[in-house]
Amino acid sequence: MIGFNKNFNNLKKNYLFAEISRKSNEYKQKTPEKNIIKLGIGDVTLPICSAVTDAMHNAVDEMSKKETFKGYGPYEGYEFLRKAICKYYKNFGVDINTDEIYVSDGAKSDTANIPEIFELNGKVLIQNPTYPVYVDSSILRGSSISYIDANEENEFLPLPDYSIKPSLIFLCSPNNPTGAVYNKTQLKKWVDYALENKAIILFDAAYESFIEDENLPHSIFEIEGARNCAIEICSFSKNAGFTGLRCGYVVIPNELKINGEKVGSMWLRRQAIKFNGTSYITQKGAEAALSTEGQNQIKKCISYYKENSKILSRALKEMNIWHIGGTNSPYIWLKCPNNMNSWDFFDVMLERSSIVGTPGSGFGTNGEGFFRLSSFGEKENILEAAIRIKKI
Amino acid sequence: MIGFNKNFNNLKKNYLFAEISRKSNEYKQKTPEKNIIKLGIGDVTLPICSAVTDAMHNAVDEMSKKETFKGYGPYEGYEFLRKAICKYYKNFGVDINTDEIYVSDGAKSDTANIPEIFELNGKVLIQNPTYPVYVDSSILRGSSISYIDANEENEFLPLPDYSIKPSLIFLCSPNNPTGAVYNKTQLKKWVDYALENKAIILFDAAYESFIEDENLPHSIFEIEGARNCAIEICSFSKNAGFTGLRCGYVVIPNELKINGEKVGSMWLRRQAIKFNGTSYITQKGAEAALSTEGQNQIKKCISYYKENSKILSRALKEMNIWHIGGTNSPYIWLKCPNNMNSWDFFDVMLERSSIVGTPGSGFGTNGEGFFRLSSFGEKENILEAAIRIKKI
Repeated sequence: MIGFNKNFNNLKKNYLFAEISRKSNEYKQKTPEKNIIKLGIGDVTLPICSAVTDAMHNAVDEMSKKETFKGYGPYEGYEFLRKAICKYYKNFGVDINTDEIYVSDGAKSDTANIPEIFELNGKVLIQNPTYPVYVDSSILRGSSISYIDANEENEFLPLPDYSIKPSLIFLCSPNNPTGAVYNKTQLKKWVDYALENKAIILFDAAYESFIEDENLPHSIFEIEGARNCAIEICSFSKNAGFTGLRCGYVVIPNELKINGEKVGSMWLRRQAIKFNGTSYITQKGAEAALSTEGQNQIKKCISYYKENSKILSRALKEMNIWHIGGTNSPYIWLKCPNNMNSWDFFDVMLERSSIVGTPGSGFGTNGEGFFRLSSFGEKENILEAAIRIKKI
Repeated sequence: MIGFNKNFNNLKKNYLFAEISRKSNEYKQKTPEKNIIKLGIGDVTLPICSAVTDAMHNAVDEMSKKETFKGYGPYEGYEFLRKAICKYYKNFGVDINTDEIYVSDGAKSDTANIPEIFELNGKVLIQNPTYPVYVDSSILRGSSISYIDANEENEFLPLPDYSIKPSLIFLCSPNNPTGAVYNKTQLKKWVDYALENKAIILFDAAYESFIEDENLPHSIFEIEGARNCAIEICSFSKNAGFTGLRCGYVVIPNELKINGEKVGSMWLRRQAIKFNGTSYITQKGAEAALSTEGQNQIKKCISYYKENSKILSRALKEMNIWHIGGTNSPYIWLKCPNNMNSWDFFDVMLERSSIVGTPGSGFGTNGEGFFRLSSFGEKENILEAAIRIKKI
């Protein structure tokens, strides 16, 4: 007799986005004349740049001819893309080899699947608040989770707590949802902690391209020792706008081993059993995104989103609302004024300004009293949102 | 301190395709003048049809414009594709609803991931020989497996063994590797067995479009009772040639429930946590593959492969070599002549005919003494292979 995986029972039913949607729709029905501005979602809005779409058109043509048709690709991704990624890493002075890169259908899949190659009985360390996938995928697997507090005091950049002995550590910098970014000194502390505990850091660098401060690290491999304790998870979603095209990759250094066995080899083995590669067309698009032309076009998109976040940040500053993020991240994390809780502030924003944001409490208990605004929108709407915020 | 998932230790190192590749390369180096014909792989070789590539070009254009750009898609896949799939199922007289379809990046991922939503302590029933993914993904998860013998006696179509009480049952028809296809009476026995055991059948229908005998079922949902005990796993890989584009889907009937909870809802919950949808471009291509024009073009490709399998089958018949498959499947499963074992026959085929096939022993112990030929090749090569086979 079959039963469901009992770990489902331990998942908190996360109504966050469903509830946002329900409240927004209710408001729309009640006041159809109002123009609702959505700053809630983390999805991009600008179209894919021409360097990428040109490459994808070519790839579609290749698929249509016998001589250039491609069937199953390599589990680790095509070499042309892995070479382009290596070249991209040189921008931050990081040397990686093509055989250290594993292409996938996205950072979310990698984030949720990589823990599967490790023992279940190790402890997983996750920050609170956090991107919910770390928590939910760990619970679904049955892992034991320890939380570390991110809060106003540590500017949402907690440092290691040596009383916890984790085996896996999730770090996300620039952070989703807070937009906070670790500096090199802080990341070094995490690397030292991981090395001391013989733990592995899963470093989620999905928002790396939003970093503009030259002193902040784009990759954990800018930190000494990281090649012995870290896996980096990367994505084409938020930089090149691939949320609907699906391409990510992980970097697993050849030095990263457990009892002499390469972690990368185990990951490849898992992928060979449970995955069959990423669309050739998407991979050709991703290669083009990393070309000189692609990078120039992408930088314009990122500047557009960051201009948005600066507009929002200026409005918040004028209102004396405490917030972080925005500068090196597409997200702004603000403290709800007057000690309001996250959902009450959501209601105020919706009903008085017709703005939809994301209640911080949806990302963990330490998010209570905070609120996330996303800058992945249209400039005209963001300008209008700034005016409305100042009017509250 | 972190360790690897110990289930890796229980995986048999499957050197099948690596060993085939090593032996072929060695032969090529030794005798560079010989034209090796590869009938080993299960990958398609014909290009993607124009209905599909036209649709993908349009989708790339949509992605390049702000007005038509698509970000994250629905976890269950776009409705346009799910509607097209429902319409396709009407070809076999099967009614399914759009909310019973879950689109993915391929049948392999689905096959390996679906068991995750069920209790680990149930027994998994797998045929021997089998597509290795069923075994390896079950082992990696830590499931207990019972095998049921497929052999010459039952024409590689075993029927239920009521002494085994499984919770999950993998069936594949048309079968990979044997090409054998269950008829409706046989499938009904599996459905009755699943219902009696309150087990769920994972029915792999990836090769469904190769069925030409009108009496054979394309879908398990042609069988009474299946909506209460089966999940069907489907793919665009072998019919529309999507092995390099990545699109599959599963059908989970709304009646399929455990303790009143819909299995489909649990699968969607899993996908929302660990997956982020399939490329929009690929989904538009898949929709076009199911259009009238697409289906006409695809049928020509399938006829081409099936003509290949008929050529091979005729040659084997002339040689009095026992074999099944080919008629309703792209695979031919033959008994090695003179009681040779699979690898010895591989060597004979390679060294005397320069033909590469797949040793049956690579698919399970009951595959020993058998050999798989794939018809996914070019007709000229197949004709040449037939001549060479007759010369042995």
